[in-house]
Amino acid sequence: MRVAFQGEKGAYSEEAVIQFFGEEVETVPCRDLPTVFSSVESGRVDYGVVPVENSIEGSVNETYDLLLTTGLKVSGEIYLEIHHSLLAHPEADPRKIRRVYSHPQALAQCRVYLLSRGYEAVPSYDTAGAAKMIMEERVLDAAAIASERTAKLYGLKVIERNIEDYGRNYTRFLVIGDKDAEPTGNDKTSIIFSLPHTPGSLYHALEEFASRMINLTKIESRPTKHRPFEYYFFVDFEGHRLEERVREALEGLLGKSTFLKVLGSYPKAAMP
Amino acid sequence: MRVAFQGEKGAYSEEAVIQFFGEEVETVPCRDLPTVFSSVESGRVDYGVVPVENSIEGSVNETYDLLLTTGLKVSGEIYLEIHHSLLAHPEADPRKIRRVYSHPQALAQCRVYLLSRGYEAVPSYDTAGAAKMIMEERVLDAAAIASERTAKLYGLKVIERNIEDYGRNYTRFLVIGDKDAEPTGNDKTSIIFSLPHTPGSLYHALEEFASRMINLTKIESRPTKHRPFEYYFFVDFEGHRLEERVREALEGLLGKSTFLKVLGSYPKAAMP
Repeated sequence: MRVAFQGEKGAYSEEAVIQFFGEEVETVPCRDLPTVFSSVESGRVDYGVVPVENSIEGSVNETYDLLLTTGLKVSGEIYLEIHHSLLAHPEADPRKIRRVYSHPQALAQCRVYLLSRGYEAVPSYDTAGAAKMIMEERVLDAAAIASERTAKLYGLKVIERNIEDYGRNYTRFLVIGDKDAEPTGNDKTSIIFSLPHTPGSLYHALEEFASRMINLTKIESRPTKHRPFEYYFFVDFEGHRLEERVREALEGLLGKSTFLKVLGSYPKAAMP
Repeated sequence: MRVAFQGEKGAYSEEAVIQFFGEEVETVPCRDLPTVFSSVESGRVDYGVVPVENSIEGSVNETYDLLLTTGLKVSGEIYLEIHHSLLAHPEADPRKIRRVYSHPQALAQCRVYLLSRGYEAVPSYDTAGAAKMIMEERVLDAAAIASERTAKLYGLKVIERNIEDYGRNYTRFLVIGDKDAEPTGNDKTSIIFSLPHTPGSLYHALEEFASRMINLTKIESRPTKHRPFEYYFFVDFEGHRLEERVREALEGLLGKSTFLKVLGSYPKAAMP
């Protein structure tokens, strides 16, 4: 089993892959999120695992935009608990650290910590990539924010643990592949739709779910890009698309929307 | 009149300030968005202008989070049309450019262009700041993505114009200050609310607007941060908070929400 993820070996996304598929899985690092999608589409890997949402920073916009245009289906979700550590070169003197490299989301999640220490935050494309760069270029006056697993993998030392500003920090990932999952009785479904720009259109769309007591777990709006300030709605709800009440709700929504795409149904994950 | 914005002189946000307040305004650059908010709160400036949404990239999460915690009111909105240019040092040979520096949103908006030219995208905190750095450090093998106005201000040359991937690229800004605006008959109102986590709660909240034919122009969800995967809803709608039907809708919403904050009412801006 080969599963693609975004980032270098040691990235949080790779941890999510291992949490879902087990230690035996072959993880395939990809430079960016479009490459994760295209690797699954071309059959070079069996699945991809992509971040959609963090409990502090919110949605990962690029993933939502790629889900819109891909032909892939969602077959699973993963909640990964995130703990950030400050990592440095083993020869670095912690008192001489001035700059901290990491992915902008990780920097944002440690904003208060970085301010309190007077470190300058420097954005990079990847948490694990920042750690790897510090080792490869033997940087001694800067640190990286990444996981303890990353530190072990590349040989950095951990200066401080759990430096995130908020205690409960989770990222939710989706598993993407050729098809979605069979009903288990405890499922979720992800859809995308757009609506005519008339008063009450969103209200009337949500009626299809509310009247059938279908619980929405997430609603996200994304710009359509081609028509300024019109939106696609990304909605997750409880239930499988093969359940009677869900089929009825989707049929009703189809009649009210200008676009509807079902990304798939999959077993609901537990938060760790 | 002193108005704070995020970024260096020459930033798109400064253009928005000038578009709204006129050429005579004194613009006050701020390192980051929290500093814009705190400058207005402390009375060091009269207003702040902050980006909330781009027609390609979507919402500016940090602004939404700051609107939640601030005591400031929204008194206006601005639509700025964005055109990106590739800028280089006047002595640079365009054929030798390898890297392109800019704010991650600007890099994302020119993704296809950068790929087609084989440039490496390097994130920085600010479009104008990237241009300024290229001049100050006399960088000859890299370029910046910023506006033509930035090029004039710092003396860079324009290598290529309108390099954005999508033709119609607008950013929407809000004007923040001590109080909101008087009714004009063509207004918008911005609010934030949260809901009990029960099936249909969002549907029933939106009923207050739909039943009164109040048109929602935007709905955005942001994580509450302290309770994973619970959300604040940021909603913009047409109408002023002093209009009868809007007062009734807000009163109804107050009874259904666990939190409600009215950011203010302000004249609706035209798109350029």
